[in-house]
Amino acid sequence: MKIGVIGLGLIGGSMAIGLRESGFATHIIGTDQNPEHAAKALELGLVNEILTLEKTAAAADIIIVTTPVNTLNYLVPRLLDLIQPHQVVLDAGSTKHPVIEAVEGHPQRARFVATHPMAGTEYSGPTAAISGLFRGKRCVFCNAESSDMDALQAAKAVYEALEMNITYLEGADHDLHVAYISHISHIASFALALTVLEKEKQEERIFELAGGGFSSTARLAKSNADTWIPIFTQNRDNVLDVLDEFINTVSQFRTILIKKDFKRFEELIRLANEIGRII
Amino acid sequence: MKIGVIGLGLIGGSMAIGLRESGFATHIIGTDQNPEHAAKALELGLVNEILTLEKTAAAADIIIVTTPVNTLNYLVPRLLDLIQPHQVVLDAGSTKHPVIEAVEGHPQRARFVATHPMAGTEYSGPTAAISGLFRGKRCVFCNAESSDMDALQAAKAVYEALEMNITYLEGADHDLHVAYISHISHIASFALALTVLEKEKQEERIFELAGGGFSSTARLAKSNADTWIPIFTQNRDNVLDVLDEFINTVSQFRTILIKKDFKRFEELIRLANEIGRII
Repeated sequence: MKIGVIGLGLIGGSMAIGLRESGFATHIIGTDQNPEHAAKALELGLVNEILTLEKTAAAADIIIVTTPVNTLNYLVPRLLDLIQPHQVVLDAGSTKHPVIEAVEGHPQRARFVATHPMAGTEYSGPTAAISGLFRGKRCVFCNAESSDMDALQAAKAVYEALEMNITYLEGADHDLHVAYISHISHIASFALALTVLEKEKQEERIFELAGGGFSSTARLAKSNADTWIPIFTQNRDNVLDVLDEFINTVSQFRTILIKKDFKRFEELIRLANEIGRII
Repeated sequence: MKIGVIGLGLIGGSMAIGLRESGFATHIIGTDQNPEHAAKALELGLVNEILTLEKTAAAADIIIVTTPVNTLNYLVPRLLDLIQPHQVVLDAGSTKHPVIEAVEGHPQRARFVATHPMAGTEYSGPTAAISGLFRGKRCVFCNAESSDMDALQAAKAVYEALEMNITYLEGADHDLHVAYISHISHIASFALALTVLEKEKQEERIFELAGGGFSSTARLAKSNADTWIPIFTQNRDNVLDVLDEFINTVSQFRTILIKKDFKRFEELIRLANEIGRII
């Protein structure tokens, strides 16, 4: 199978590695608007060749778009303009409602499958691409009923080759769920990192003590602005909603400490411990 | 060397494993007020025998107190009452100022070394004890000038056997630093877990999407209330101080989202990325 990958970063590069290793991809064509990323992806062997968007669209059986989400509303309709009716376009964006709206009414809408392979690291670019990134993780297919059956089957084959588990959701539900499960974690991490970095200006030795707990909660603060600003822009309303709840919950701990109500604090810890069911 | 361990949980048990494996401890005596924990520690081979506090204090060269911090203010002075002038008492508590105050003026004060080996997991009890927990991590010695030189040397030998790196701080400075580097991370994790668990009541499929990012930031929410309530009780003033700064920082993200000021959002992400220097 000939695969086209638009956007040769962590996600696109890791998909290329996984699809080649599984034998699913026999030839991988890459496109990236950053010539350095394109050259690096070729040098690392992530792709067999670099072509323009148009030539990739002409040559690949399945075209996977792994660029920042702000570019999807332009790139996905553009690719649907270019492809033949036997080809398939997938995206891998962390928001789904906007791209689904962008393709609504497009004559080739049914050749597009809106997907979100939920995997990543805090690193970015083609050098961050790794083998096995998606293995055992979850991929969300959104509004699957709007895609042709054979296009859906092709998308399923891609993610099964990457050893992902598939979940089906409506785009709007997906975007609310990821606000809770992913986007708010990033804001909490950014805020933790900023709080301690600010303190470091007075207490230069403070990071000597940074151990496993801090590393775990602040790890996501290394995440790339070029990826995340478009996500927060597109999912702003959901994130604001969840952020209000998070602030209210953190503020409860503040009130509890002010009142020295450690009985209530203990109740909240025991409630929070329930998360052990999940993670 | 005969070692006494008071409190056979994650920390005490893991210290016992490390001190035996390194050859530092030739005989380990354990004490735990929970008879099940004591029996389990013996069964797991963490300790050679279980004795009372008094008999442990009589028999061990070095006595390490690894109980919740609310018990230290009683246990450490009590042990100093019991020991002979050649013996040494260490604690391993996550707060240091209160226990240092509790021993002030004690005739055997100089036989006590206030230490905080900064390592742990979100699990607790003797079955959570693991080999290598402390390796390469940092141990803080507080107010070292108040301890006898030979007691300090003994404490250093303990933590060197566990392959830890030692840092010296004043107790009050330590407590402020850990509020930033550890305690606030726990509150952020508890709050994240509670926010999503609350949402789960309406959206039962929300945890299907819980991936690596969420697991990383919410991992500490599994932490044990019996350990953490005494820590938050003792370090309440510092934690409140840091929590206010954290809430202000999170609220900045809220204001930015309300105003759609994504330029400022990007600046904050790039500032937060600085944490990559540290972790």
